[in-house]
Amino acid sequence: MQTLTTIEETREISRELSKRGKTLALVPTMGYLHEGHLSLMRIAKRSADVVVTSIFVNPTQFGANEDLEAYPRDFKRDEALCEAEGVSYIFYPAPESMYGDGYSAYVNEDNMSKGLCGASRPIHFKGVLTVVSKLFNICEPDVAVFGEKDAQQLRLLRRMTTDLNFPVKILSAPIVRDPDGLAMSSRNQYLTRQEREDALCLSKSLNLAKQLYANGERDAATIIASMSDLINDFKTPKIDYIEAVDDRTLAPVSTLNQPTLMALAVQFGKARLLDNTVLE
Amino acid sequence: MQTLTTIEETREISRELSKRGKTLALVPTMGYLHEGHLSLMRIAKRSADVVVTSIFVNPTQFGANEDLEAYPRDFKRDEALCEAEGVSYIFYPAPESMYGDGYSAYVNEDNMSKGLCGASRPIHFKGVLTVVSKLFNICEPDVAVFGEKDAQQLRLLRRMTTDLNFPVKILSAPIVRDPDGLAMSSRNQYLTRQEREDALCLSKSLNLAKQLYANGERDAATIIASMSDLINDFKTPKIDYIEAVDDRTLAPVSTLNQPTLMALAVQFGKARLLDNTVLE
Repeated sequence: MQTLTTIEETREISRELSKRGKTLALVPTMGYLHEGHLSLMRIAKRSADVVVTSIFVNPTQFGANEDLEAYPRDFKRDEALCEAEGVSYIFYPAPESMYGDGYSAYVNEDNMSKGLCGASRPIHFKGVLTVVSKLFNICEPDVAVFGEKDAQQLRLLRRMTTDLNFPVKILSAPIVRDPDGLAMSSRNQYLTRQEREDALCLSKSLNLAKQLYANGERDAATIIASMSDLINDFKTPKIDYIEAVDDRTLAPVSTLNQPTLMALAVQFGKARLLDNTVLE
Repeated sequence: MQTLTTIEETREISRELSKRGKTLALVPTMGYLHEGHLSLMRIAKRSADVVVTSIFVNPTQFGANEDLEAYPRDFKRDEALCEAEGVSYIFYPAPESMYGDGYSAYVNEDNMSKGLCGASRPIHFKGVLTVVSKLFNICEPDVAVFGEKDAQQLRLLRRMTTDLNFPVKILSAPIVRDPDGLAMSSRNQYLTRQEREDALCLSKSLNLAKQLYANGERDAATIIASMSDLINDFKTPKIDYIEAVDDRTLAPVSTLNQPTLMALAVQFGKARLLDNTVLE
């Protein structure tokens, strides 16, 4: 395994691999890797000859009052985990090489990025789409793998890849959970003991939604109210949103008669955690 | 020469050429080709093994009240001109294949796109940057050639290519002028006889600016006022803007002590015409 810190070197290696007929899968991450990331790498490994994992805490996707500085980092540990997964290259650029003097070009999505997380994090997806565009152009992968925990992000990246004609196949990986049901996230480490306990309400509320749906409930407001009640029985959570949206367009739905993404974001102290499931 | 109308076919041919070690130069155009475009193709031909010219009247760069429908088109003539220049492929997509159902991802530039033409055409450069990103991703060129007449566009495209790390080298071609000095533009054909005569004021005003500069004048307001007076002596022109901006950042300058782009846009009846020069 080799760690690449410059854009030029990374592009050169990708082009060389392509010349030799090798396919390349990219796994974009912000590091502090957990089982969720590793599952992406395993899918990447099955989908292409060579796996590149990027590790970059992308400043443009953090709002001014968000946790850019506090975001957990442990490159040595990440490196060992990538090595163990058979990753060939880590792309680990310096922020100043990604966003130079006078940086001003961005990729935006004008519809599906506005609701859900986009409502409380207005610049977040602009940062995500921009950095992934950059990574696509630097690494020139055949395949890129993203996690389903970030449901809105995944759909926006698919939309962007289609709309801007990036020659990249997007694959997704199911949410990986701790044994008790909490979706894995680098931000889980912000949780206090009490918050960690309470954070189970995320998966519990989604399980409740699944159960209601299985029993024939199709009214979005009813399902959301039940989820909300369940979460509000805990001490620490503050709900940012619980929404039922069309799985494809992310438009809010009132009656669940199409595949529906149930998505929620809940704040526990310093940690804003996401979870979701598709009801269909 | 071959005309390609689908994205898939175009990408396939580009990839095949790349596998065979051939370099590719892209010349993006909206068709209705003139000597200016042909000069781009000649530069393209000198810069790569294979030239692709795209011909696409891009709807997203036209405002609601602009000339999308009226924009001149003559594909048969364009095809013959490309053939004569030794172009290998024309990429000639249908608008619906470029902007499908639910299209919503765009490329924006947040600073340099706001002034000059961006002030009176607020969505124009978003459309230009988006379509060029798409063309880059479809054709995967090594080189792309753009004209210096569209000075702001050229600088924005360079900025975008750098910022988003497109693996494309941007070349520019000097303005091509009619013998009397009018910069060539597909929109010149909108001009009435009187307007065509008056349109000489564009290059005349720039020549005046050059002369003032050569004589030591460094005050932007003085130069702009002289250009404005010259233009207003004609009957038909309506000045949209005359500006002196930093050649690199496009920030307005009051004193010309760095390379300065003198740029203007003037309306003649239905035709909004551009011209520019760099004073240094």
